[in-house]
Amino acid sequence: MFDFSLNATDGAARRGRIATPRGQINTPAFMPVGTAGTVKAMYPEQVRETGAEIILGNTYHLMLRPGAERVASLGGLHTFMDWPGPILTDSGGFQVMSLAQLRKVTEKGVTFRSHIDGSAYELTPERSIEIQLLLDSDIIMQLDECIALPAERPEMERAMELSLRWAERSKTAFGNRPERALFGIVQGGDDPALRAQSAAGLAAIGFDGYAIGGLAVGEPQETMFRVLDELVPDLPADTPHYLMGVGKPDDILGGIERGIDMFDCVHPTRAGRHGHAYTRFGVINLKNARHRDDARPIDEESPNPNCRRFSRAYLHHLVKTEEMLGAMILSQINLSYYQELTGGARDAIERGVFAQFSADVRRQWARGDLPPLD
Amino acid sequence: MFDFSLNATDGAARRGRIATPRGQINTPAFMPVGTAGTVKAMYPEQVRETGAEIILGNTYHLMLRPGAERVASLGGLHTFMDWPGPILTDSGGFQVMSLAQLRKVTEKGVTFRSHIDGSAYELTPERSIEIQLLLDSDIIMQLDECIALPAERPEMERAMELSLRWAERSKTAFGNRPERALFGIVQGGDDPALRAQSAAGLAAIGFDGYAIGGLAVGEPQETMFRVLDELVPDLPADTPHYLMGVGKPDDILGGIERGIDMFDCVHPTRAGRHGHAYTRFGVINLKNARHRDDARPIDEESPNPNCRRFSRAYLHHLVKTEEMLGAMILSQINLSYYQELTGGARDAIERGVFAQFSADVRRQWARGDLPPLD
Repeated sequence: MFDFSLNATDGAARRGRIATPRGQINTPAFMPVGTAGTVKAMYPEQVRETGAEIILGNTYHLMLRPGAERVASLGGLHTFMDWPGPILTDSGGFQVMSLAQLRKVTEKGVTFRSHIDGSAYELTPERSIEIQLLLDSDIIMQLDECIALPAERPEMERAMELSLRWAERSKTAFGNRPERALFGIVQGGDDPALRAQSAAGLAAIGFDGYAIGGLAVGEPQETMFRVLDELVPDLPADTPHYLMGVGKPDDILGGIERGIDMFDCVHPTRAGRHGHAYTRFGVINLKNARHRDDARPIDEESPNPNCRRFSRAYLHHLVKTEEMLGAMILSQINLSYYQELTGGARDAIERGVFAQFSADVRRQWARGDLPPLD
Repeated sequence: MFDFSLNATDGAARRGRIATPRGQINTPAFMPVGTAGTVKAMYPEQVRETGAEIILGNTYHLMLRPGAERVASLGGLHTFMDWPGPILTDSGGFQVMSLAQLRKVTEKGVTFRSHIDGSAYELTPERSIEIQLLLDSDIIMQLDECIALPAERPEMERAMELSLRWAERSKTAFGNRPERALFGIVQGGDDPALRAQSAAGLAAIGFDGYAIGGLAVGEPQETMFRVLDELVPDLPADTPHYLMGVGKPDDILGGIERGIDMFDCVHPTRAGRHGHAYTRFGVINLKNARHRDDARPIDEESPNPNCRRFSRAYLHHLVKTEEMLGAMILSQINLSYYQELTGGARDAIERGVFAQFSADVRRQWARGDLPPLD
């Protein structure tokens, strides 16, 4: 059965545990994104070894290729990609808005054409639930309409109200499935009153968890944090709080400080494919010529072997020659750092020293990378 | 100390063992190609786990990026790429001929411009040895001139004689290094007399091993086998025989039958990146739509877990969506099959049943892949 228990709090920060039939998820949790049935450049067991307990699958990508019915006939997404742990799927809405062509939103849902071959699709709240069930998802998201910021208030209000009506339809379509979870998504842009109205409306419907959508869509970090400051205390405390599509390490730390339990983002894997390594001392751009002759590893005291075994010069070489191994190693390094960060936060919240932990983490980020070689 | 021992023969096929300070190499051996300091899409330990005991590095690629002096200052190629086992490096000559721009061959050596940035280089027999020593190579190849087939006899003769003079200079430049090996390279195109003359000339100079260059350069397989039939018996029997740049599985089996001990080729990794999987039942093109709904694995009785755990449908999906994991898995599957093939040959030669082994292998290849699903 799906369940959430809160084990400790420290300020607004929460240490919890999500139970699912496919395994537990310690929160705060970072979920690597397995866009099209693979966390890019990683074997499933390598993802697990970074510490990840749950991954995310993208409904939009999977409904186009290989198709939800096909995944179902092949045994579901876990079997398809050989990831036995829990999977959260998004509703497809966000990527329809950001990737698809000729999209048209109506009360019923959204029609669009595939960015791959132009073929026509319709995604309704009911079809999104159906697809996510075909994928055999453990945590299912309602279809919502996510708009970019900044936006005018009437537009934010319209999208928020539509998303609330879609939430209601999603709940009906999902039915009673205690082994899975359905999460509602709070919308309302950067307007506190709209966000509060959305949260109250969702709570009245009743969900297994509450996600915050429509952030990290172009607004400054302080806007995002201000929305969280006002919104998160309004969310039901006995369910997980999920900040969708966020973010960089400092976004995640700030989210945990404000009571967020779950995060996902393509950033660590995408940054890895672009030659960036995240460590406790911030981000290292391995494309930079300063690393060309640098025999030092990324971080010789890291718990992650990949941070200790390869020289910066070697990683620079792999990135410059566009070798896949560079993307493989740096994706692993970044996902590991994200897990190290959330694992450290969990430990600190349990021990009641989260403020100290955050200060220490920020001090290390501020120290920055090693000085270049002479 | 470098050493070669012959443990068993069966017909012309040989079961041997090369000793190097970095570990032994059981022959017949297939050497995965680590072009630019990485066997593409594979961690070093994943290469080792396929059964590979030695890899090949490309002097041409490494001299351009990151540069031989740089690799040396970073501790040599083994340290640079974290492959502790033996490494064979080619001389750079073959890729100068196939990749570089504005190349000009003189008695002294070859000048060319980099295919990457157009910068000018000179490669002489002496510089090639120097580069390979900077890379800390265990098995070093002489610089030769490799021409494409078909070619006119005077051209084959000229290139063969030049390669012989370069062999002499390479031997002098290499000096006395008992912990490493220097291999001469037989040239002479598809002309038996020229090949015999080249082999005799090299044997008179004296090398730790003898490679056969200038094959698999456009000629039919039967031409290659005919050259081997006439040439290999002339090679010194107490040293390894290395067929350069070969090949597909049936080229390798035919080479072993003719007394070849060592092979290298980019084919298994390149084919993997292009969606092809080699198994004991031949080659499977995973791009083909017949695999789209096929839940069966590549080969459910393979000793390689990757052949058993992922469905053809999943691999088809990864290949069609150009996901790196597809290249990673298929490179691993192909390198594993090549090791399975050479390992099986070693075992059969030891047991004196190599003819039976070859017939069985060819029968399985001829059986071909499973029939498509209905």
